[in-house]
This record gives sequence, C-alpha cells and structure tokens, in this order.
Amino acid sequence: MSGTDNGKKTRKRATAGRKHTYVPRDPAATRRRILDAAVNEFADKGFSGARVENIAKAANANMRMLYHYFNDKEQLYIATIEEVYRAVRAAEQDLHFDEEDPRLGLERLVDFTFKHFADNPDLISIVMNENILRAQFLKQSELVPAMTSRLSNSVSTMLKKGVEAGVFIRNPDPTQLWLTIFALCWVHLANKYTMSWTLQIDLTDADWLEARRRHVVDVVLSYLCGPRPSTPSAAEIV
Amino acid sequence: MSGTDNGKKTRKRATAGRKHTYVPRDPAATRRRILDAAVNEFADKGFSGARVENIAKAANANMRMLYHYFNDKEQLYIATIEEVYRAVRAAEQDLHFDEEDPRLGLERLVDFTFKHFADNPDLISIVMNENILRAQFLKQSELVPAMTSRLSNSVSTMLKKGVEAGVFIRNPDPTQLWLTIFALCWVHLANKYTMSWTLQIDLTDADWLEARRRHVVDVVLSYLCGPRPSTPSAAEIV
Repeated sequence: MSGTDNGKKTRKRATAGRKHTYVPRDPAATRRRILDAAVNEFADKGFSGARVENIAKAANANMRMLYHYFNDKEQLYIATIEEVYRAVRAAEQDLHFDEEDPRLGLERLVDFTFKHFADNPDLISIVMNENILRAQFLKQSELVPAMTSRLSNSVSTMLKKGVEAGVFIRNPDPTQLWLTIFALCWVHLANKYTMSWTLQIDLTDADWLEARRRHVVDVVLSYLCGPRPSTPSAAEIV
Repeated sequence: MSGTDNGKKTRKRATAGRKHTYVPRDPAATRRRILDAAVNEFADKGFSGARVENIAKAANANMRMLYHYFNDKEQLYIATIEEVYRAVRAAEQDLHFDEEDPRLGLERLVDFTFKHFADNPDLISIVMNENILRAQFLKQSELVPAMTSRLSNSVSTMLKKGVEAGVFIRNPDPTQLWLTIFALCWVHLANKYTMSWTLQIDLTDADWLEARRRHVVDVVLSYLCGPRPSTPSAAEIV
C-alpha cells in the first residue's frame, strides 16, 4: 500500500499544476488539523451539507491525506462524533469529581458541564444533527458508549460516597442524575434560537448565562443535599 | 373571490382529467387537515426536505386549496410552527396551575409538560429543526412570543403565591424555573437517539420514562418546596 502511494507521489510530483501529495512531516498534527476542521464543518452544515473539500482546505491538507487518515466522508464523520465525545469525557475524568468531598465533587461536575457545553457549540450542533439522523452514525461507534460507561461509574461512586457520608439526602439512579445535570446545562444552548425569540430574552448574554449557571448549581445541589445552611447568600435566595 | 373560484370550478369540471378545485364543504376542517399533515411532514423532513405535494395528499386536499389557505410553503411552515406552540400553550393555560394550591399547581405543570413533550414528538422535531435553521421562520411569528408571555405570567403568579404562603422556600426568576422544567422534560426526548446509544439504555421504554417522570417531579419540587415531610414514600427515596 505504501509502495503504491510512493509510486503515485513520484508520478504526481513530475506533473506540473497537479496537487502535491507529499507525506506530511507531522502526521499526528495533520490528522488533528483535519479533525478540528471536520468538527467545524460538520457542526455547521450537518453530514449531508458538509463538504470534505472544505475540511481539507481549512486543515491545510489535501484530499489524499484526508482519505489516507479517514477513508471516506462517513468514517471522517464518525471520527468527528467520537472526537467531541472524547473531549468531554476526558475532561470529566480529569475533574476527579468522584475522589472529592461529595458535595464539592457534585458542584464541580455541574459547573464543568455547564461551562463545557457553553464553550463548545460544535458539540451541541453535532449531537443535535446526529439526533435528527437518528444516531445512524454514532451507532457505529463502540468507543462512545465505552467512554460514557466510565462516566456513569464515576457518578455512581460519587453518589455512594455522598449517601454514606450523609451529605446527600437522596440516592437517585445515577443515570437519572446525570441526565438531569445534562438537561439543565444543555437546553438553553441547543434551543437558544427558539427560546430567545419565544421568551424575548437573549439567552446568549453573559450575565444571563451566569445567572443560569447559579440557578442550575442550586437546583442540583438542593435536590441532593437539601436546603443549604442558613448563610447570608442562602437567605438572599428567597 | 368565491365568484372567481366558482367560475374556475365550472370550467375545470368540464375538463376531463383535470384536478377538481371545488370549494371545500367545511373550510375549517380542511384547513385543520392541511395543518395536521404539515406538522407531520415538516417534523419528519424539516423545512427543505418537506414536500407541499405530500402535505396536500395526506390532507386529502389539493394544491390550490393548500395555497388558498397558506399562500406558500414558507407561510405554511410558519403556521405549522405556530400550531405546535399554540397547542402546548393552550393546554398549559387549561391547567390553571396558577389558580391551584402552589405545590399542587407546580406538580401539575411539571407533570403536564413531561407528558405533553413525550406525547408530541412532532413538536420536539419541529423545534429542533427550527434551532438548526437559527429560528429564521419562528422569528416571523409575533404570536408565539405573545402566547409565551401569558405562560410566564402564570408561572410568576404561581411562584408569588407559593412564596407568600411559605410553601416555596425559594423565589427563583420565573424564566429560570420554566427553563428548568422544560429542560428536564425535553432532553431525554430530543436526544433520545444519541443518549440511548451512549448510555446503552432504551430511553423510549415506558417503565424508564415513568421513572424519569417521577425523578423530574422530585427534582423540581425538592428545589422549590424543600425536602418532603417524612412519609413512607419519601423514606424509600434514600
């Protein structure tokens, strides 16, 4: 295979006006650039609307390199989906929220999720598009469920510790708790266009988002930990 | 206008093989059938993918009638968006949750929202599609924000009553509370395809949905009302 490639390379280099197909100096960096460009293009235009040529151009790569790393548009799209999930799952693991005091760990997880979703609109778009496509491409990935299973284990560990320590007054199903955190951090972003219009509020405003973040942390913590001790800040809530 | 219609009708009836264009016997019912068919078609295929011909056929109407009532595809799509919002806003008003004991009113609103979203997948799809289109069609509707403003007023009334009665221990911004209820009832439906795969759980399973409903009610009520009195069912939670 590589022998054939080299043969083509030699022929193409001798052909004036043809695209260069040299082997990249830093294959990992090239693959990374292609993947980053693919995240943008697929998030913006969906699977059908996205053009592989745009991705290669934005990545400063050529089509042959792109196909070398990702085979075809479908495999590139699946790799893109895996990449946005990998990024969030890896960052969640880096929090070590299950090794923390349970209340602090919970707050850290909610806070991170809120900010990661807000800072990664491409993740939101890609997941929305994939739901419209009924997850037909995501379902070809075994990696994403495996990564998510690690998250579920960490949420379970945190819950168990918090209940045993008497810090959490409830012991919900870990998946339900995770979906609740996800939902509260997600909907005002996924539905920002419709909700900004229906509610006549700019849901992308930084002050509004900060108020939303505080509300979301408060909802999740009050559910699991009960009302806060009577501190001045808690008194201000009512 | 109807004189012209009748003239055309007479001419067309005399022309073998031409489509009938008679005035429908029950205009309101015809309009309704077109709108119902449009909800299905637009939910299934989005604005670009939907075909007006399919809508007319499914509604047992002809294209002339469809254009008579809705002008063009874009106006029909806007009417479709307004219809799915009208249905949910009207049903919310019918709950009279702000005239109820605040805790019961809140529980009724959460319960209704959960079930209405679950029973109306077309609403979910249309709102998702419209967010991908950056609400470009919804923004042409003044009706939807006006209807939503009534909902916001009812949520505010319920909150005020609950805080004054000492039933609610917090007094959040009404919009934040509404978004929280919306989010908790929405995400497992809008993201059902991706989440069912990533979590390896069937999020459309009736038992799972019932467990989700109970969890959502519990989250919202514990946030606003604090921990429940120590009843057997509350004791089971931990």
